[in-house]
Amino acid sequence: MSTHKVSVIGSGNWGSVTAKIAAQNAIEHPDLFDQHVRMWVHEEQVNGKNLSEIINTEHENVKYLPGIKLPENLVAVTDIVEAAKGSDLLVFNVPHQFLVRLCKQLAEHIDELKKAAAPHPLRAISCIKGLDIKPEDRQVDIPCRLVCQHLSIPCGVLSGANLAPEIANEKFSETTIAYDEMDDKFNVEEKIQNDVALRLWKKLFHRPYFHVQTIYDTVGASLAGALKNVVALASGYVDGMNWGDNAKAAIMRRGLLEMVHFANVYFPDETSPETFMKESCGVADLITSCAGGRNHRVGKEFIIRKFINNDPSVTIEQVEADLLNGQSAQGVLTAREVYELVALGKRLSNFPLFVATYEIAFSNRDVKTLPLLLDSSPRGSL
Amino acid sequence: MSTHKVSVIGSGNWGSVTAKIAAQNAIEHPDLFDQHVRMWVHEEQVNGKNLSEIINTEHENVKYLPGIKLPENLVAVTDIVEAAKGSDLLVFNVPHQFLVRLCKQLAEHIDELKKAAAPHPLRAISCIKGLDIKPEDRQVDIPCRLVCQHLSIPCGVLSGANLAPEIANEKFSETTIAYDEMDDKFNVEEKIQNDVALRLWKKLFHRPYFHVQTIYDTVGASLAGALKNVVALASGYVDGMNWGDNAKAAIMRRGLLEMVHFANVYFPDETSPETFMKESCGVADLITSCAGGRNHRVGKEFIIRKFINNDPSVTIEQVEADLLNGQSAQGVLTAREVYELVALGKRLSNFPLFVATYEIAFSNRDVKTLPLLLDSSPRGSL
Repeated sequence: MSTHKVSVIGSGNWGSVTAKIAAQNAIEHPDLFDQHVRMWVHEEQVNGKNLSEIINTEHENVKYLPGIKLPENLVAVTDIVEAAKGSDLLVFNVPHQFLVRLCKQLAEHIDELKKAAAPHPLRAISCIKGLDIKPEDRQVDIPCRLVCQHLSIPCGVLSGANLAPEIANEKFSETTIAYDEMDDKFNVEEKIQNDVALRLWKKLFHRPYFHVQTIYDTVGASLAGALKNVVALASGYVDGMNWGDNAKAAIMRRGLLEMVHFANVYFPDETSPETFMKESCGVADLITSCAGGRNHRVGKEFIIRKFINNDPSVTIEQVEADLLNGQSAQGVLTAREVYELVALGKRLSNFPLFVATYEIAFSNRDVKTLPLLLDSSPRGSL
Repeated sequence: MSTHKVSVIGSGNWGSVTAKIAAQNAIEHPDLFDQHVRMWVHEEQVNGKNLSEIINTEHENVKYLPGIKLPENLVAVTDIVEAAKGSDLLVFNVPHQFLVRLCKQLAEHIDELKKAAAPHPLRAISCIKGLDIKPEDRQVDIPCRLVCQHLSIPCGVLSGANLAPEIANEKFSETTIAYDEMDDKFNVEEKIQNDVALRLWKKLFHRPYFHVQTIYDTVGASLAGALKNVVALASGYVDGMNWGDNAKAAIMRRGLLEMVHFANVYFPDETSPETFMKESCGVADLITSCAGGRNHRVGKEFIIRKFINNDPSVTIEQVEADLLNGQSAQGVLTAREVYELVALGKRLSNFPLFVATYEIAFSNRDVKTLPLLLDSSPRGSL
């Protein structure tokens, strides 16, 4: 039987870690996977040398994952079509804002790519966290669906309590893979086919230090991964005010409930509360993100500057710029988009924490009103 | 209408905090509550003076809650029957191991106490965390049921993400009150009566800094409050090994699932997974306890001494003694009792985290096997 060939689209911090894992498992399962795993690298110069060359000769991504040895069977390729061609398993792991542009580039060659993947069907998985919200259309979309739409191939989700530096160092972690290429879940043949694909993805990513659990709920996994960033921002507010562990747990609990409620409102019948409550991509990712991570850091620092150091002129964008070296904290963008969406749908009162998180960041709301806002919310909404 | 009179049985750290809250709310709602709230104090000498006298003159529990001003309408009483007599609302907040003895003392005077509570029925609530496990009988009991059994009165539960020092300082927190005096939930009259009582308990404890949510599930609230201590111990192991936030979130996620499973196995049809997944007494209390607290501290220190500093002779009891000044970490006892119970029931494989937590503490199991143990567990058991 022909082996499966893997390409990772993206070579940032998390992209390089997932590529490392896939390359390790290709070696471990030669019966299943082609021995070379390719990684698309957006070429740039590092100390006068091409990043792709450094990766291919020194086996280290010195720019985005310094200090971590990459497997020698991981090959950097700078042309995205060339990087994907011949592979049947595509792993998307790029910053959210680049996804559509890259999909369009690949879409121009999709017939060629599908042909080169044969005898296997072309399949994808997304490790990208974020939402595509169009408040004016009152619509939400998720990264894996953008891949499906642009390339007309199935695309699942890999998401979990996965701080990349810890996994790069092979510290123990869990993750969730959600995959659903079924048109009809009651069609036995389709379900068997889907479960075969799900096992294949698990073989590609499961490591002794990286435990994979599998589910079908791609929507729930995507929403949890994006919305928890808003809660992480709010938990940063609590730590900025030094309100303690009780208050932080209260915010996280409420955040989890609003995440589930958001899923029910905007994707009715497409997602399960269990994904949020039981899986690594749900409650565990929320816990990890609220313990640290960039959204938590931005929320905390913003509150310290504005309310502890009493600087009314500080903006959250400025804090982002100062802390994240020009990058953005996904939670700030998501908080704004979620707010605009629920405001247009006249659903503000159903999401008191999401709304308060936005208003404290952008509308001069006093952070001290946060506990009272939570109290006034309708409990029955779940 | 006659007002309700409140007695808090217990004056430790958490007992004094709950008494402070009740006394504040008695003042706030004079239409509902008698203006004096009594607190039973186990008399002891502090600097040559009676603790009860200090509380009644200086309005501070200098021994167990130093630095916190207590309301002047909170009155310390040293005789337990005298402390309870005339009150219709009894709040039990003593160390778990003293509960039965105190109940027996009160039970000898129960007719007298009920008469003195009239026209109101005598009701109780328990703030005590712990389980009464009799492995040889394969039985588990919960503190509030011990009160019901010994005194023949209804007893609810107050439990949540409630680190006492933070609440003493009026930092924001949530809690859950579970109360169920219904024989038959489908009897409308009984349900109305129960909800009246539930609102009364909420009035007694809800403060601007202490938000109360109410449920009926006394069993779930009790189990969550006790079992999370085992998970906190395990999360301490992770921090002792410095395995990082991903691993800690994985342990907490798994712990939450085993808590729900334990409830389903030992109290079938008596509890709801929602209590664990959605309430302050569930997921939020778990988060707070794994962030810090004494069980987490004991687990962490034990692992550091045994596996980082390589001292094979260290025992967890010794670490408890060193860290907690002779007190015990509830999680150590609960881990042992839960282990014995599930071992006798031949259910070890359904609780891999609980079992591993026990075996690492007591059976010389290497902590490094923890991730693998979790991987091998049956996922279908929920």
